[in-house]
Amino acid sequence: MTQHAPSSAAIAEYYGLFIYASMGSFNLLAQDAANAPSIRDRMTLSRMAAAEIGEIERVEDRIVAGGRDVDVLLESYRDLMSDFLLRAVPRDWWERLVRTYVGYHVLQDLLQDLAGQAGETVQEVTHGTFASIGHADWTVAQLEPVLAAESQLSARLALWGRRVAGEALTLVRRLFVDHPVLLELVEEDDGVSALMGRLQAAHSRRLTRLGLAS
Amino acid sequence: MTQHAPSSAAIAEYYGLFIYASMGSFNLLAQDAANAPSIRDRMTLSRMAAAEIGEIERVEDRIVAGGRDVDVLLESYRDLMSDFLLRAVPRDWWERLVRTYVGYHVLQDLLQDLAGQAGETVQEVTHGTFASIGHADWTVAQLEPVLAAESQLSARLALWGRRVAGEALTLVRRLFVDHPVLLELVEEDDGVSALMGRLQAAHSRRLTRLGLAS
Repeated sequence: MTQHAPSSAAIAEYYGLFIYASMGSFNLLAQDAANAPSIRDRMTLSRMAAAEIGEIERVEDRIVAGGRDVDVLLESYRDLMSDFLLRAVPRDWWERLVRTYVGYHVLQDLLQDLAGQAGETVQEVTHGTFASIGHADWTVAQLEPVLAAESQLSARLALWGRRVAGEALTLVRRLFVDHPVLLELVEEDDGVSALMGRLQAAHSRRLTRLGLAS
Repeated sequence: MTQHAPSSAAIAEYYGLFIYASMGSFNLLAQDAANAPSIRDRMTLSRMAAAEIGEIERVEDRIVAGGRDVDVLLESYRDLMSDFLLRAVPRDWWERLVRTYVGYHVLQDLLQDLAGQAGETVQEVTHGTFASIGHADWTVAQLEPVLAAESQLSARLALWGRRVAGEALTLVRRLFVDHPVLLELVEEDDGVSALMGRLQAAHSRRLTRLGLAS
């Protein structure tokens, strides 16, 4: 735990990141929906995307209550997610599934980790959103049978998963450079390196679930 | 009004069209959100997109209650919206705004018109969704100042609006060819031509709101 309670600037920054991440996740899942091979998958992914947006309003209210401008806060995160999308362009549906499986959950883990230091109010305001939208289970159900049957695809997706994780984790590091006030929400004893280690470990567990080496 | 109550097949077909249209509108609005020039516009459009998805579940329940398979019903509409997106590719943000303004509202008008013949249950089940998500007002607020200042853009967007409406109305005609059971929901006295006339008239009123000739 941090020795001091985080400043109101750090809390506002967290809320900004949180909303931006929700909009980015919405975009990622909506793109996946648009590319889904079946109507059922498309509907499932559209619903997951819509669920990301449902939680934003409460967080926006907190930013306004704290006297900060929502748009200005969000604008500073502008390139974060678009960089991720540009750097990891999937070549097919399977790579797309893995991209979201990796990128979306690294982001969720990051938000949840930082929320741990941000205090009870933040945890309450953002609570509902960490209730899983079921994306990990759904992705595993999609990929498991395909991966079991096609070892070449498995090898390719394992490589791809590593590359996507590399991009995502690089962007997390950049996030703290561009928004140093967020460092107040990183546990003091161990710092960013330990946080990165936790994100990497959670990512490895997720790839193992798919039978892929990270 | 039709002389006979519509068959359960026509009702199921309507529900299928309704869900498919909601998913298509979600896709259209989510794409616009991803291309929005400001974070505020992006958030507004993401919210409108998410609202389209919120209403689907109730309609799905009705299809299942009627003993039909949701996925099979939806699959038959598969190409309808993607054709619209492929035939009317916007070259810039303004054309994108006009495409959604025209296409989304033609679709909404169509659904509402058919619901008028589909009976009270259908109207109740789909009611919430015709409560405007505010897209028309929002679009007019975006475009009005730009169009007032740039007459060349106005001329180009007027042409574009006509083209987009042409594509949308062509797809409506094809809809009745591919799904003739939906004809039960078209007023008998006047038929499809009169329905097309109503859609065209509503479209013209919307373009006039923008100061564009249809």
